[in-house]
Amino acid sequence: MGVTVGIVGVGLLGGSVAAAAKSRGVADRVVGYGRDPARLEACRAAGLIDEGRVSFAGTDDLDVAVVCTPVGRIAEDVRGVAADCRADAVITDVGSVKASVVTGLSVDPPATATFVGAHPLAGSERQGFEHADAGLFDGRVCVVTPGEADRGDVDRVAAFWRSLGARVIEMKADAHDRALAFTSHLPHLAASALAATVADEADLVLAGTGFADTTRIAGGDPGLWADIVATNRAELLAALRTYAGALSALADAVEGDNEGVRMTLEAGVDARRRFESLSR
Amino acid sequence: MGVTVGIVGVGLLGGSVAAAAKSRGVADRVVGYGRDPARLEACRAAGLIDEGRVSFAGTDDLDVAVVCTPVGRIAEDVRGVAADCRADAVITDVGSVKASVVTGLSVDPPATATFVGAHPLAGSERQGFEHADAGLFDGRVCVVTPGEADRGDVDRVAAFWRSLGARVIEMKADAHDRALAFTSHLPHLAASALAATVADEADLVLAGTGFADTTRIAGGDPGLWADIVATNRAELLAALRTYAGALSALADAVEGDNEGVRMTLEAGVDARRRFESLSR
Repeated sequence: MGVTVGIVGVGLLGGSVAAAAKSRGVADRVVGYGRDPARLEACRAAGLIDEGRVSFAGTDDLDVAVVCTPVGRIAEDVRGVAADCRADAVITDVGSVKASVVTGLSVDPPATATFVGAHPLAGSERQGFEHADAGLFDGRVCVVTPGEADRGDVDRVAAFWRSLGARVIEMKADAHDRALAFTSHLPHLAASALAATVADEADLVLAGTGFADTTRIAGGDPGLWADIVATNRAELLAALRTYAGALSALADAVEGDNEGVRMTLEAGVDARRRFESLSR
Repeated sequence: MGVTVGIVGVGLLGGSVAAAAKSRGVADRVVGYGRDPARLEACRAAGLIDEGRVSFAGTDDLDVAVVCTPVGRIAEDVRGVAADCRADAVITDVGSVKASVVTGLSVDPPATATFVGAHPLAGSERQGFEHADAGLFDGRVCVVTPGEADRGDVDRVAAFWRSLGARVIEMKADAHDRALAFTSHLPHLAASALAATVADEADLVLAGTGFADTTRIAGGDPGLWADIVATNRAELLAALRTYAGALSALADAVEGDNEGVRMTLEAGVDARRRFESLSR
């Protein structure tokens, strides 16, 4: 009997989960859930899903469900897809903030299938299943947050993400959110503020590859990111204040002390070297 | 009679000028100037230059000289290469800061050939002629700073950069430095400070493509960048203070006001769209 994977929200990430699950033989059948029948049909025509559904009725054919909707909607969609699920099904997600989702679902868990949160560190500033990529998770870290789930269910969800090519790291949800505030959410807001500041102050025709690289992610969907900010407010605030402080200290160094500037430049090179050696 | 181009400092940029000049038929002969005979010979063996010289004696065979050394050394190298030049030769450079170079050379100009400053907005965090690229200037903006030079010499230097594929924009040196403080030097320091802050606060194994993009340029040579900071101190300080202020305001918005966060996110998207439409 084959494995059926349900994808709730078939955009760039959901579509990439679908494509990876199919191309790697993880899923025999992929069901896509969405609001717009026309988008689901386009997704099916593109070969990403076998069937599209606009309602959560009859989800008892799913072995694994992956909720790929914006973070503010994840808890609701987990409960929705879980309603008709078999007790041995597992549900995971791709949300880039975890504590609010995991805590909400621990207090009021789905009655049937078990939820084990996840966050694959992969993505793009592009949107839509048209940009789905079967190799998106290949070699990427996927954080899995066990929460209150049984070890067996955690292991099944971890194995699912591994089977899509990801390197799984288990972490508590709040440790994940603190770290990601620095490694992901801060870079995004820093890029947005930088792009806006530069555009206000100088002619963008004089911007080159440095501006292009540092601000690329600022092109991401404001709605999705406002959602991420709202669900990780306290940690992100701490990260922003830390970075703003580092920049003020750097400005003081530029004003007075070449040595301080050099130390920041060298700390940056060192951080990049460590990052690149980890990414290899 | 063929055109001979001299390149002072044959690294990534100098090597790319050499490669572009050869492949586009702009130079019949390229002479490289450097300190290290072994590097010059490697450069010749790689086909980038026809001859390497470790001294500025006998530069009367040059029609155009391009000084590609770090900004702190440009004025000295312009005077050095100019010493034996013919009066009808022109000298240009690739320095990313212009006022200090142009002002110094206006007060005490080379006795012979005319200097017209330039800054091609192209580059890479990589170093060395091994990464030279004949297409590096293709479609890129190159700022030319006329200074006190005659129109005819400015036009010749502008034509030289156009012949390598660049789009030439003429600007005053101080206007260039103010703009580049925002479009280039600020992004670099912001990337260095961001990489250092994130590495201090979180495990880099949890950093993904957003961190990768926003901090890529932080891998650049600290010596070169300390030099740029030192020669554009006042403008860069203003840019850093403006950006640090924008980040503090954004932190306040994260603390209190979703609408403020959304405005910054949308301003970032808008800036990226404008930048991308200009780059096309």
